[in-house]
Amino acid sequence: MIAAYQTRCQARVDAALEALFTPPRHELTRLYQAMRYSVVNGGKRVRPLLAYAACEALGGDSERADGAACAVELIHAYSLVHDDLPAMDDDDLRRGQPTTHIAFDEACAILAGDGLQTLAFEVLGDARLNPPDAETRLQMIMTLARAAGSAGMVGGQAIDLEAVGRKIDQHALEVMHRHKTGALIEASVRLGALASGHADSERLAALSRYAEAIGLAFQVQDDILDVESDTSTLGKTQGKDQANDKPTYPALLGLDAAKTYALDLRDQALAALQGFDQRAEPLRDLARYIVERRS
Amino acid sequence: MIAAYQTRCQARVDAALEALFTPPRHELTRLYQAMRYSVVNGGKRVRPLLAYAACEALGGDSERADGAACAVELIHAYSLVHDDLPAMDDDDLRRGQPTTHIAFDEACAILAGDGLQTLAFEVLGDARLNPPDAETRLQMIMTLARAAGSAGMVGGQAIDLEAVGRKIDQHALEVMHRHKTGALIEASVRLGALASGHADSERLAALSRYAEAIGLAFQVQDDILDVESDTSTLGKTQGKDQANDKPTYPALLGLDAAKTYALDLRDQALAALQGFDQRAEPLRDLARYIVERRS
Repeated sequence: MIAAYQTRCQARVDAALEALFTPPRHELTRLYQAMRYSVVNGGKRVRPLLAYAACEALGGDSERADGAACAVELIHAYSLVHDDLPAMDDDDLRRGQPTTHIAFDEACAILAGDGLQTLAFEVLGDARLNPPDAETRLQMIMTLARAAGSAGMVGGQAIDLEAVGRKIDQHALEVMHRHKTGALIEASVRLGALASGHADSERLAALSRYAEAIGLAFQVQDDILDVESDTSTLGKTQGKDQANDKPTYPALLGLDAAKTYALDLRDQALAALQGFDQRAEPLRDLARYIVERRS
Repeated sequence: MIAAYQTRCQARVDAALEALFTPPRHELTRLYQAMRYSVVNGGKRVRPLLAYAACEALGGDSERADGAACAVELIHAYSLVHDDLPAMDDDDLRRGQPTTHIAFDEACAILAGDGLQTLAFEVLGDARLNPPDAETRLQMIMTLARAAGSAGMVGGQAIDLEAVGRKIDQHALEVMHRHKTGALIEASVRLGALASGHADSERLAALSRYAEAIGLAFQVQDDILDVESDTSTLGKTQGKDQANDKPTYPALLGLDAAKTYALDLRDQALAALQGFDQRAEPLRDLARYIVERRS
């Protein structure tokens, strides 16, 4: 079920993303190549899927969520490019391919990431990819800015870097993940909901609870997979978190308790959607998929 | 004249900027310190001045341009933080102080720059710092995004990096500067004009011509100062452009012709403002100051 829906969302957002990387002049060719390389990479497009699915869950036409879907993926992509840099996580591989600073160079990767972030906001302002009224687009931009910035995703990266090598408890780990990955996942559903034109504060709050639960579930499962999978399945270096002495759920709770926790979070996500009809089924399917996936 | 106006603008934007760096939680203290360090640094605030002066030139209350002034300075600050990184220009000093990656560390500097960029867009969306109507704020956000991104400032940085060590002509040099510094200078006056509530396409076009001329003049004068000033006056390492084999106007045109060119550009800037009344005097003063300054 979710696989077919995911394939549709992926095709849809990939087509919209692909159109963004035509260099406006020849001097910018290499920068745009690096930006494109960082985005057009066969990624699973989980955040775009969330934006489309939240839009449809509220009865919106998924076309209205193209801007939201592109914007959250652009923010995600930029964060990975910068996160992979030698001064940060120093990763050479991402989805089995050389990371941007390896395929190009460090300076180009820094700039490509910077440009991808700006592009996310430009895309959200574009009336062709979003609802026509300025008020809604502005609200979407503010939602993304709060989620992506220093009080959200960027803040989470900073907390993560400071936590490496330190003993931290489950609360501190969740504070980190709520910022580092949770904030953008929440923004994805909220942007999709806003794009639908049918968002109200009650539905937005329910979608936020859903997002918080699947965000943590995603992370718990990622940590579990880092322990259990091999490098080729995962597309990144296996056991890297452990080797770097990064705090993880299996390290903190034990592997079995981490698995139980992931299932609890899935159930919380499903509970948050109780007031939604069958149009929220893709969101429910995703919650189930997150804790069942093997990569 | 311009010194007093500049001091007023500086005080005004510094107060508004200072209010942006209260960490929302203690785990984010160091990131917010790095962001604040990168911004609250005694900078001359040329871009905020342009925003305020353009707003006032169109008869707007300068209070309406606080958001514009902060946003362009935040983008400028983030670009310097990333530009100074070892993988980019590798500068240890900025305005006589250690650069952000020296005062903190590289990872923190990358993230602080990322967070400053996001904050610029968040600030422009804030109704307390900008005109109340969503349409205008959205237009300001789009103007900034186009100017700051890969087709503007970030693109200019990329062109600059590729030009190091290559022989380039005046046209190529100007393409680089128009992107790297010109786009944000133009955005500064356009944002100020939009914030005034009295912008029309004719005035915006005139302000853009003004901005293009002073932007190039600023760069030509910077290149001249890099040759002529000593390190303590300049607050950065003197002769660094030459040592790095960066293309400069004095290298390309000769020092005397570069000085003449700077004066021509000043006159072009003043000509662009012919249709404006005495409220554009600060903009005119700035055009004169740019080619007369010694640091």
